Amino acid sequence: MPNPRAAMLVIGDEILSGRTRDANMHYLANEFTKQGIDLKEVRVVSDEAEDIVAALNALRAAYDVVVTSGGIGPTHDDITADCVAQAFGAHIDVRDDARALLQAHYDRQGVEFNAARQRMARIPDGASLIDNPVSIAPGFSMENVHVMAGVPAVFQAMVASLLPSLTGGDPVLSQSLRIDRGEGEIAEPLANLAAKYPELSFGSYPFQRNGVYGANIVIRGTDGGQIDHAMAELTQLFD
Amino acid sequence: MPNPRAAMLVIGDEILSGRTRDANMHYLANEFTKQGIDLKEVRVVSDEAEDIVAALNALRAAYDVVVTSGGIGPTHDDITADCVAQAFGAHIDVRDDARALLQAHYDRQGVEFNAARQRMARIPDGASLIDNPVSIAPGFSMENVHVMAGVPAVFQAMVASLLPSLTGGDPVLSQSLRIDRGEGEIAEPLANLAAKYPELSFGSYPFQRNGVYGANIVIRGTDGGQIDHAMAELTQLFD
Repeated sequence: MPNPRAAMLVIGDEILSGRTRDANMHYLANEFTKQGIDLKEVRVVSDEAEDIVAALNALRAAYDVVVTSGGIGPTHDDITADCVAQAFGAHIDVRDDARALLQAHYDRQGVEFNAARQRMARIPDGASLIDNPVSIAPGFSMENVHVMAGVPAVFQAMVASLLPSLTGGDPVLSQSLRIDRGEGEIAEPLANLAAKYPELSFGSYPFQRNGVYGANIVIRGTDGGQIDHAMAELTQLFD
Repeated sequence: MPNPRAAMLVIGDEILSGRTRDANMHYLANEFTKQGIDLKEVRVVSDEAEDIVAALNALRAAYDVVVTSGGIGPTHDDITADCVAQAFGAHIDVRDDARALLQAHYDRQGVEFNAARQRMARIPDGASLIDNPVSIAPGFSMENVHVMAGVPAVFQAMVASLLPSLTGGDPVLSQSLRIDRGEGEIAEPLANLAAKYPELSFGSYPFQRNGVYGANIVIRGTDGGQIDHAMAELTQLFD
């Protein structure tokens, strides 16, 4: 069977103005190459609905797999989800499953789940959610179009959530733990733990927030019981 | 008058496979932003003629300015110039003006101007050459499409050659000198010389070849006599 043919759509004025240098294209290219998926085209467009919808429709008709990056945050110029709905002629609104994820997340943090944040729960009817263990707000898959965040750490975590379903393995489960310590301090005990569970994958997604260095550690695998065990050990290690 | 609207077409399998991380998009985005040209779309396609021609025709119809990067070297997969000719329905062959530039360059280096290198003199009828002070093989402009190299140092030098003509100033002249010393050694005397000629611009394009560090120094301006003087001083400084 020939490799699936894929395209990527990068959405964001900040890339086209030069303010931000895109990192997701190079990351996705490498991940797809490792998985035997041929990335054949990338387009970068600005935050304009007409351009996004036109690119989405051109790419989803021409390729087996389309990945988008950017434009699913809480601000007014984050219009990707609405554009995907428009391209597919699907209804879109705040969806209960996405809202429940975010509500629980903000409740844990003691942060108000305000109108702007609720924008991130706007998901087209018929789409399935893509797990975001880093910052919770989900991506989503609509037929062959997979919609992900532009922030590189989140994009990478979503790619990891998505890839197994593209290449036809067992469904992958994940759990995550936020650790408020620098990766340098985490790395060695994490590597030892990972060595104990060769069938699980351990991802570390660093962040810096209000001057605090930390990382979201994500454990992925197909055996939920094993993930539970590993997560219990991880929690103990960094308690 | 509204800003010109521009698009970029990046050509190369090595970008899409993840082997190389593109640097030209971010560079062009910044240069265009400084000059008041709005980069509205970027496409990355592989080294396949059909894809390149389709993207060229879509972009040149939709935008005021189109810049391409990649696929104008000496190897068999460098097919950009032929694709541009095809997109415009223009004849293409090795052209005398480009051949003369390259012949002189290789004669100076004592290198054979073989068939592969002559490919780099293939220029469509009706195109005007874009100066490449770094490695001589020229880019070219065909109506609103500007065809440049993928190697970042060469791409950047070509952008510097092209930009003044896009933004409507006097034609810019240039002369270059190759200096086989590291930039750290060149920097201070070069800065002093540049300060003596405030109306000229001095660019330094470093390279490393066979273990030798060096730089191509390019002096640009609209006053040919002044460039002659500055080049004479530059040659004396690093003789």
